[in-house]
Formats: sequence, C-alpha cells, structure tokens
Amino acid sequence: MTKAPDDSLALHTDYYILNMMYTYWKKGINHRRAIFECYFRRNPFENGYSVFAGLEHVVTYLQNLKFTASDIAYLEEYGEFEPDFLHYLEGMKFNLDVRSAVEGDLVFANEPILQVEGPLDQCSLIETAILSILNYQILIATKAARIKSVVGNDTLLEFGSRRAQELEAGLWGARAAYIAGFAATSNVRAGKLFGIPVTGTHAHALVQSYQNDYEAFKAYAQTHHDCVFLVDTYDTLKSGVPSAIKVAREMGSKINFKGVRIDSGDMAYISKRVREKLDAAGFPDAQIVASNDLDEDMIQSLKMQEAKIDSWGVGTKLVTGYNQPALGAVYKLVAIEDERGNMLDTLKLSSNAEKISTPGKKQVWRITNSKKEDKSEGDYVTLNDEDPRQLSELTMFHPQYKYISKTITDFKARPVLQKIFENGKLIYQLPELEDIRNYCRQNLDSLWDEYKRNLNPQDYPVDLSQKLSDHKLKYIEHIHQMVQDLGTND
Amino acid sequence: MTKAPDDSLALHTDYYILNMMYTYWKKGINHRRAIFECYFRRNPFENGYSVFAGLEHVVTYLQNLKFTASDIAYLEEYGEFEPDFLHYLEGMKFNLDVRSAVEGDLVFANEPILQVEGPLDQCSLIETAILSILNYQILIATKAARIKSVVGNDTLLEFGSRRAQELEAGLWGARAAYIAGFAATSNVRAGKLFGIPVTGTHAHALVQSYQNDYEAFKAYAQTHHDCVFLVDTYDTLKSGVPSAIKVAREMGSKINFKGVRIDSGDMAYISKRVREKLDAAGFPDAQIVASNDLDEDMIQSLKMQEAKIDSWGVGTKLVTGYNQPALGAVYKLVAIEDERGNMLDTLKLSSNAEKISTPGKKQVWRITNSKKEDKSEGDYVTLNDEDPRQLSELTMFHPQYKYISKTITDFKARPVLQKIFENGKLIYQLPELEDIRNYCRQNLDSLWDEYKRNLNPQDYPVDLSQKLSDHKLKYIEHIHQMVQDLGTND
Repeated sequence: MTKAPDDSLALHTDYYILNMMYTYWKKGINHRRAIFECYFRRNPFENGYSVFAGLEHVVTYLQNLKFTASDIAYLEEYGEFEPDFLHYLEGMKFNLDVRSAVEGDLVFANEPILQVEGPLDQCSLIETAILSILNYQILIATKAARIKSVVGNDTLLEFGSRRAQELEAGLWGARAAYIAGFAATSNVRAGKLFGIPVTGTHAHALVQSYQNDYEAFKAYAQTHHDCVFLVDTYDTLKSGVPSAIKVAREMGSKINFKGVRIDSGDMAYISKRVREKLDAAGFPDAQIVASNDLDEDMIQSLKMQEAKIDSWGVGTKLVTGYNQPALGAVYKLVAIEDERGNMLDTLKLSSNAEKISTPGKKQVWRITNSKKEDKSEGDYVTLNDEDPRQLSELTMFHPQYKYISKTITDFKARPVLQKIFENGKLIYQLPELEDIRNYCRQNLDSLWDEYKRNLNPQDYPVDLSQKLSDHKLKYIEHIHQMVQDLGTND
Repeated sequence: MTKAPDDSLALHTDYYILNMMYTYWKKGINHRRAIFECYFRRNPFENGYSVFAGLEHVVTYLQNLKFTASDIAYLEEYGEFEPDFLHYLEGMKFNLDVRSAVEGDLVFANEPILQVEGPLDQCSLIETAILSILNYQILIATKAARIKSVVGNDTLLEFGSRRAQELEAGLWGARAAYIAGFAATSNVRAGKLFGIPVTGTHAHALVQSYQNDYEAFKAYAQTHHDCVFLVDTYDTLKSGVPSAIKVAREMGSKINFKGVRIDSGDMAYISKRVREKLDAAGFPDAQIVASNDLDEDMIQSLKMQEAKIDSWGVGTKLVTGYNQPALGAVYKLVAIEDERGNMLDTLKLSSNAEKISTPGKKQVWRITNSKKEDKSEGDYVTLNDEDPRQLSELTMFHPQYKYISKTITDFKARPVLQKIFENGKLIYQLPELEDIRNYCRQNLDSLWDEYKRNLNPQDYPVDLSQKLSDHKLKYIEHIHQMVQDLGTND
C-alpha cells in the first residue's frame, strides 16, 4: 500500500461514476442541475422503523471533498481522460445543496432520507461514499434500538470493535449504538473522538497472567477503585465467583465492588447461581454483566428464563448487523435540468414494482396526532412545493393495500428533511451527541408501540400525496409509452 | 466529532485492555514476556479452508503505533490513571516480535494464524485492532474464493463499496477479493492505493439524464472507447439492448463495443434473450455482465440454468460476507514469563471443549505429499521447538474423530508462520499484490478438490503433534485440579 500523504476520499467512488462525469463534461451537461435522493426499500431486520444515523460522517466527508494531486496523478496514469478534464476535476469546488433527515430521527422505507441538488457531476461523485456511510450507520443504530427495546432499564454496553468489519466500522458503529440507547462502548478511540462513555475492566488474559482468579482479581483491586471481575476463565462457580467474593471482602471499602462478568456457558443457569452466591455473601448490590454472542432475541430469551443479568455487553451481532449486514439504500436521480433550463423529473423503471423510483424533488412530513398524545400516525411524502400543514384533513393509506386508510383532522406535520448544505456551505449546526441520543429517545417515544415491536410490527404508513402519486403514475405511463413506441420499430 | 490532528490508532483498543495494562504496570509485571496467538474456531461459511489476508494492514497499523499527545490528554481527562503511567505510555516504544501466516496462504480453524511475543502490556494493547482487521479481511478473501470457485474462467468484478460497512471496509474488501481471484474492483481509491485494476462504465443515472437509452449510449460512445452499456433502466429487451446495438452499429470501429450489463430482472431468461439479440445483430463477441445481489449460490444456479453471462459483478454479499458477517477470530495468551524469568504456558478453560485454548508457543506446518503432486495432506501444529521435517513418517488424525487417521511417509513440511517483526523492526518484505494473488492461486491449486468444494467439504486435518497434545491435556488436568482444590474450600 503506497498511501500518498494527500490521500483523499474523492476517489472513494465507483469508476463508472468518473466515466459518466467525463461524458457529462465532454457533452457539456456537467453543470446541469440535478437532484438525487437516497432511500431504502425495506427497514432492516423486518423492523417497523429505522433510526437515522451517519449524517456527521457525511458532513465531514463533504467538507473535506477535494481531488488532490495524487488523485489526479493516478487518474492521469490509469484513466482515459483528457488532461483538461483532470484539470477541471482538480479545480472542482463543491457547491451542493444537501437536505437530510437528522441523526436520531426515525426514517422509513420508500421515502427520501437524504437529498442532494447541484451540478450533475458533483451530485454523481458522492454516491458511493454516502451510501456506504448511511447503509452502515442506519443499520447499526436500528439494530441497537431493537436490542434496547428488550432490556428495560438494564445497561447496554457496546463491545463489538474486535468483530467490526475493519477499524472504521468499529468507531462509527459504537457511535450509532450510543445514539440508539447504548450506555457506553469499549472502544477508547470512540470515547476520545465522540465523547461516548467508555467501559470495561479486564479480560481472561489478566487471570491467565496470574494463572489464578484470586491473585488476578486482587491485583486488579489493588490498582483500580471500580471493580467488575471476569469470573469464567477457569470455572465460574467454583473458582471465579468465590475468588471475586474473597477479594471484595478483603478489600472492603477500599474498592467499589460493582460486580462480575460472565462470558460463556449457560447464562440463564449460571447467572442464577452467581446471584445466589453474591447475595449469600452479602453483596446484593453487586451486578452481573453478561457478554457472549448476545442479540435482542438471546436477551429476550434469557429474560424469559429469569436470568439474573443486570448489564448486557453486545458485540458481534450488533456491530455487524449480523442477521442482515447490509441495508441496501440506493441513490437515484429524481430530476434533471433540460437544455432550456427547465427541471424534468426522472424515473427508473423495473419489472419489480418495488424498484420503480418516485420522480421529482420531494419532502417527507412526519404526521402526528394532536388528539392522541402527538403520536406519529405516518409519513406523508409530497412534491417539494406541497405543504400539508395547509390542509384541514389528511387521508393516510396503508403502504401496500390502498383500500386500507385512515383520515385524521387534528394533525401536526413536521418536515423530516432539513437543510444541511446550501451552495456547498454547511448551514446546519451538528448537534452534540447527547442531544442526538435524547432526540432519538423522544422520537421512539412518539411512535405507537405497535410499530415498535421487534416481531411482526404493524406497517407504518408511508404515503405519497395524491399529487405525487398521480405524478408518478403519469411518468410510468410516459415511459411505458416510449418503450412501446420503440418496440414497434424493433 | 472533534478529530484531533494527531488522532492515532493507539486508542483503537478496548478499555479493559488499558485497565489491565495499568494493573500490569502498577504491579511491575508489564515487561514480562508474553506470547499471544490469534486463531478462529471454524472456517467461515462452512467452508473447508480460509484465505489469509489482512497482514499488510496489520503491518502499517503496527508501524505507526504510538500514543500521541491527544491520546494522552484524553486518558488524563477520562481515565483513572496516574500521570506516571500516562508518561510511560507516551514514551512506549513498540518492540514486539510478530510471526504470521502470509497473505494469500490458506489457514484453517484451530491453528495459530498470527503470533505476538513481547512485553505483556504491548502484546495486550493491539488485540482489538488486529482482530478487527483479520476478522474482516480473512472473511472477505474466503468468500471471494468461494465465488471464484464456481465461475470457471468468467471474469469477477467487485462492486460492493456502496454496501460496505463504512469506507475502510470497502477499500480493504476490494483488496481481499482481488487476492482471492477477483479481476477488478469498482472502487477507484482501491485502485490508486493498491494497484488493483478498476472497472465500470455507467449507471442508470446516465440514461435517466438523457431520459432515453439510445441518446445516453450514444453520448457515452462518443466520449469513451471501451463501451459496456447498462440496458435495464427502462426495458432491457425492448429498449436497452436494441439501443445498444443501434449505437454499436452507428459507431462501428470508433468504439470497442464490449457488451452490455444487466442489473435486474430474471437473469437466466433475460440473458438468453439478450445473447440471441446480440448474436443476431452480428455481435457474438459482445459480452454480458450481470450484477444484482449475486453470490456463489446464485451464480451456480444461473450457470445450471445456462444463463448467458460472461462476467459477474458481485457487491453486497461479498463485501459484507453476507451470510456470515463475522469470522470470530480470538487472540489468546498462550505463555507468560514468571517471576523467575521462566516461560509458563497458559490455558483458558471453558465448559465448551471447542473454546479451550491450546497452551504454549506453536508453529503450524503445512504437510504436502511428495508422491501425490505435492498436494496438501493437512496441517500439523507443534510446539515451537519441534520440527516434523526430521521425522520419517507422520500420522495425521481427523480433527474431531481421532480413530480416523492416515500415515504418510513421503511428505514435505513447510512452516506457515513467518517472521514479520523482530524486536519491533519490520523484517518481512511486504510482497506485491500480484504476487500475493498468484500465491493464493498456487495454494488453492495444491489443496485437494474434496477440501475445496463449497458444499459439505471434507474436514481438512489440523492436527496437534503428540507432544503438544499431551502438553494440552496436562494443562487441562492441572487447572481442573486447581479448581477442584478450591471447590473443597468453598
């Protein structure tokens, strides 16, 4: 790896994008105004909602976006581009408008979650990196919210860095988990960079270094005030827990004996036996931390079995989104300026109805019911110039079955997409992480329980306005006609 | 995110490691010589082997490892460490010995794949980052090898960056795929940094920008020599392919019409119809590229159906290791210096036999049969001071069922772990990527087909030497005894 000192993310893009940018430039349409929207087709994990995360990384990516000398040198050597085009890239000043859902908000399938507007080539360039960021962080935040939903007031700890798909995922995965309700991470760098509380006491290696639970715990207790002892290196019930108790008694008030951690074995059975031993020894406040391939299903099962576990360390299955490791968000052109300067909406057809894109620049409105505790009734997707706040009533349809609908009168509507960049300038103040986390909690609170349950949730309405729906049908018809006309010539 | 200019990876570690390092330091055992080994318990995807990758990233990580001023400042503010300890960290000079399998070699479950020796605290610090790197890159290289195994001489293209779990995974995932036989990547930065061939022509957005297949292909053809047209934006058979043919005819020898790409629909049916149309139009050499949620099973199914596909673009399911997104490699202490300067081997017990570690510093020997084309017969794991090359015959046992064994006489044994760092100094010359890729091919060639099939492969023997096996049993016995002695006091 010959990492240039000026390595940049401008080339963290798919090669076909550069080839398209070259065509646009040669054909003189590179400056035409375009609008791209990012969306996904299904919530991950068959969940009823998704937690939006990733905007902060998108922002820093866009703020630093610039073709560097080594980027240009590589394209000069490798690509088949004219020098003038490379010169153009080198001088490219990004002046995009970006609107986006904000971190900690909820988002749903088949609605725009991020929208980019500006010169066709600039909009194109950023697709790959933005999708990689959003696909990952939304996935992990949503997984974390699912896990959070089953633990009640228990503490959740993110322990996944060693299983994260390379280092960067460990870092941003820890942050996404924190947004959705985890209390802390084991990744110290995530603590340093994001201010997330970090946690952890010791591993099996400490015990192995002393070849003895008691000696190891004693050494730890003599050098740390807060102590959670890992008790399963040799034998949890015969050696680990008795040694922890012995050290706790010997050290008395010199340490804060917070509890023990179990990392293997039959957690339901062992945790109950450990609880008995701790209680019998006079440590009813000592907690039990569990960590061993946990996810929301395993935690729920352990709770059903009345396992005596107070804190849950979750790693692999959170930080990789284990049972569905990709969200599948896409980034599609929805409008393009024509040669006379008018904006034309665009569509991508597909034989799969779900994959047909919705044309035009849009806004998403979160509809809440003023008569019912301001709970969310659904999302209403409109063309950008519509404002449902001017309507006196709103009919929301079931996303697939249009004959199911509800009409609400006392509603509030708030726009989900907010202005982030205007003409390349960041006009959005990135919130503090704590505020994002609180905002996420508020948003989850405002969603009816029926949409939130992990298994088989109700379908949350994501509804196109009548105008947008008609618009989409008109475009589909238009393209069908165009294809049919071609077919007769074939 | 307040990214310090001197952000480093020294804190990309789990907090419990720093807490242990502090105990070691306070107790004066931080300099004791330790040996840690990295291994995994099962090949991913129920595969018969794994492809080793990730060493280059491990090397650059270790070469740049240093606590920076902002790292120390964070620990000062956040941790509960004495200033002298922070001072010690700040001055830490890494002087580890590292031995490792090399990239492109094959590795197997339950054998050391990387070994770190040096001061206990330094060895401890690097666990998290090394595991994150190896867990990911071995996973992806192995997945890529599985995909490669079903395509014959067809070309494989890595298209996964947009679905990669954050940007870094896209980059190293592209490289891991290339090592295991992919021909190219779409990620331009991976091309720049690693010299991987990059590929791609255009996306749906180009067609949408022109609102017309023909106009878009024509524009592309007028600005590029090599042309692969994406034909499924509106209607593959009625619009896409006829437009591609029309443009190819009009442009004639001005372009190299390489073929078309299909990204949706019933690939088996459509590819046959597309092939007919291309052939009938006089373009029998034009190729068909497919890309739509492909993996080894889908490709095999399409081949069974005699789909007419020449090149395969694989994304999501490769770059996330979709059906098993984590390898689960661990990093365990196998030996530690005692207070008298002797090395003591160590063990982690578990109620799950599979999770019991094997004590002592080891070497892995790849055993090949001189009488049978030098094909691999199994791996032989020994204590470090054993050399099976001095033996006249070797008995290899089935990994689980010890009553199944084979004895070979005409064998060669080569050590799998090679010296990478000595006393902190890199003594291994990182190979060129092409050489790694060729080496991987050679290693796969030397493995019997029975171990290589994707479904239900034979178990490749990974065998402990008699001495090592006895050693392990002795340690288990020793610890059982220790636990039992404790139990009587409880």
